[in-house]
Amino acid sequence: METAHGKILTPAFAAVGTKASVKSLTPVEIKDVGISVVLANTYHLYLEPGEKIIEAAGGLGKFMNWPGPTMTDSGGFQVFSLGAAFGRRQSKISFSKKSNATPRQKPVHSDVLENIRMGMADSGEGGKTTNTLVKIDEDGVDFLSYKDGSKHRFTPERSIQIQQSIGADIIFAFDECPSPSAPYEYQREAMERTHRWALRSLAEHKRARRGLARASRKKMRKGEQALFGIVQGGRYGDLRKESAKAVGAMDFDGFGIGGSFEKEDIESAVSWVNEILPPEKPRHLLGIGDPLDIWGAVENGIDTFDCVAPTREARTGSLYTRAGRVNITNAKFVKDFSPLEEHCDCYTCANFSRSYLAHLYRTKEILASTLGTIHNLRFFTKLMGEIREGVLADKFEDFRADFARKYSTR
Amino acid sequence: METAHGKILTPAFAAVGTKASVKSLTPVEIKDVGISVVLANTYHLYLEPGEKIIEAAGGLGKFMNWPGPTMTDSGGFQVFSLGAAFGRRQSKISFSKKSNATPRQKPVHSDVLENIRMGMADSGEGGKTTNTLVKIDEDGVDFLSYKDGSKHRFTPERSIQIQQSIGADIIFAFDECPSPSAPYEYQREAMERTHRWALRSLAEHKRARRGLARASRKKMRKGEQALFGIVQGGRYGDLRKESAKAVGAMDFDGFGIGGSFEKEDIESAVSWVNEILPPEKPRHLLGIGDPLDIWGAVENGIDTFDCVAPTREARTGSLYTRAGRVNITNAKFVKDFSPLEEHCDCYTCANFSRSYLAHLYRTKEILASTLGTIHNLRFFTKLMGEIREGVLADKFEDFRADFARKYSTR
Repeated sequence: METAHGKILTPAFAAVGTKASVKSLTPVEIKDVGISVVLANTYHLYLEPGEKIIEAAGGLGKFMNWPGPTMTDSGGFQVFSLGAAFGRRQSKISFSKKSNATPRQKPVHSDVLENIRMGMADSGEGGKTTNTLVKIDEDGVDFLSYKDGSKHRFTPERSIQIQQSIGADIIFAFDECPSPSAPYEYQREAMERTHRWALRSLAEHKRARRGLARASRKKMRKGEQALFGIVQGGRYGDLRKESAKAVGAMDFDGFGIGGSFEKEDIESAVSWVNEILPPEKPRHLLGIGDPLDIWGAVENGIDTFDCVAPTREARTGSLYTRAGRVNITNAKFVKDFSPLEEHCDCYTCANFSRSYLAHLYRTKEILASTLGTIHNLRFFTKLMGEIREGVLADKFEDFRADFARKYSTR
Repeated sequence: METAHGKILTPAFAAVGTKASVKSLTPVEIKDVGISVVLANTYHLYLEPGEKIIEAAGGLGKFMNWPGPTMTDSGGFQVFSLGAAFGRRQSKISFSKKSNATPRQKPVHSDVLENIRMGMADSGEGGKTTNTLVKIDEDGVDFLSYKDGSKHRFTPERSIQIQQSIGADIIFAFDECPSPSAPYEYQREAMERTHRWALRSLAEHKRARRGLARASRKKMRKGEQALFGIVQGGRYGDLRKESAKAVGAMDFDGFGIGGSFEKEDIESAVSWVNEILPPEKPRHLLGIGDPLDIWGAVENGIDTFDCVAPTREARTGSLYTRAGRVNITNAKFVKDFSPLEEHCDCYTCANFSRSYLAHLYRTKEILASTLGTIHNLRFFTKLMGEIREGVLADKFEDFRADFARKYSTR
């Protein structure tokens, strides 16, 4: 994939930089581990520092001094998960009592919102949903800030405008992301709304493109952004296919496969849409990062991935190896002076022992996060390289079987 | 100064790496800011991971992958401050009730310990003392771990043995570090004990040196460590001079000026001993890091410094500039796209705006600590370079006056 900020060799893994920082790494370190693209979260950046600050800085890449390609999600996923999570952090505050929110329109399905609340998966860099005051209507979504409970509203147009200000190379259409446990009827309704929102996202994006004629440099940059549509449909094959057909027919530059996936649904959700989406356009699988799932998704046509797993796990001491993840804080590593992985070429494995890593994690040194994140991201960039090599050598299945034989998910 | 791991151009500022990590920096980053020597804390490393782990790793430098010179303090300062601080972290636990400690010997001065408790300054990377169960006798000190309240004992011999295992290039004699508010009589008593402990530290160190004849490589390394004696004497000129005379006459490789200094006492404490200590041997001022104090100390013969200030302040967003420290979390920086310091050559100033730094600190991103620490340490290495240049060009006073005119301590 070509972007204004450089090439992305596919399949590629986007490092998540939720708040315009890949947690604990400098841009030099991000580059050194072989990451080619960074994905930031629109929801978080909108709330802090605000998209206008980032626009004034010259866009996301300039703001965080990341010279390579960037992506932002639409904010939809976080609105539906984190937007309702304020109660988790401030458990004494009940929204139904405290909020002065006067819904401009009645919530579509209050019973379904309960389903969203119960089933919503862990999201972004935040936590589980435990409360809800997300109000969906045809026009958009009212939600509360996960930070302070303040009220906000996203519409497809607003999401695109914010993403234009943030200025990533690849941006996403605004979608509704229901819980995987939501019933079929609601999944259909949400999907159909997501399709209407996709058209509105596209129209808003085209308005910026048309601005090119009388363009300032800033407008030019906005117009150059690639817009990806998002396929929804939950765990239902017919909905997924219908969504791929509808969104695939729209004039997007690429596609995201969205959803709060249950683990067993990922490969089927991807395979259902594989034959339907336009083959010449790139496909991004949103939020998926299990190494075995990545092999399955690439087999089914996925080009790019993003997931908080390698960075988040790194901060807890859960480090990826070819044999599976290890918990480096385990006492057995304290006296182990070998590198984390014997043949790993990352800065961490080349220079530090398991003993030192265990010490850093056990004493909660900040450097633990940095060294762990370097290794985990390098694990993913090497994995992507291996998959690419397998594809190019026409040995994908052999490579995949070899990987799966060694890699334990226990 | 020459060490087995390289030269230290003086005056030099040692970055504090309490637990074998300069908080939030990789060794590459430590080197890039111009730091030439890292000081780790014996007390912390003894408690975790334990000196035997570090010895098995090949010593402090190998353990943390820092190829340059290293120092360890004797553990004395932390024993007297942190050793008594367990109650602070676990406020529900009262030592006098919970501890099963049976003092092997009666505390020397329980009334003086109260003084230590009240007056002890902030120490190492820990906090204020709020409780005390440090028991000093002629042979050594019983203290409680700041981590879990477990009981430990340091003697001069034990401190040297631990520092030999840790294996830094420069180590320090075990000293007692009373509160600056301790009365004259106790300061004298503590100083005299410190002198006896200095002789025992020296004897223990020589035992390792004598081991050189039948030496394994490991013993060889131990024998090559430089041992610095510590001058004490509190805020009393006669005691400081007496201490400098006594310790200066001992066969140390260099000297540390110790004490829990009140700000106004630093320059006098250093000037009192300047003419007395052997001029050919290096002098280290322990734990001092105010830029203006550093000028004063160099004027009075100090060669090397260590202080947690630049690293600790960096983690709170307090960043050093030529005009004084600024709190980068201040709202006025959120929209300020200039670098923190216009002419600073550090990675942070060369690549990031005040706006981005403010964002990182306000959103509590780990990268904030890294970028802040890089800048603050670079500030100190540049300061040392400027002082050195001033000395070499015989313009020390001009440079000092120029610095002091611009630098505000408000």
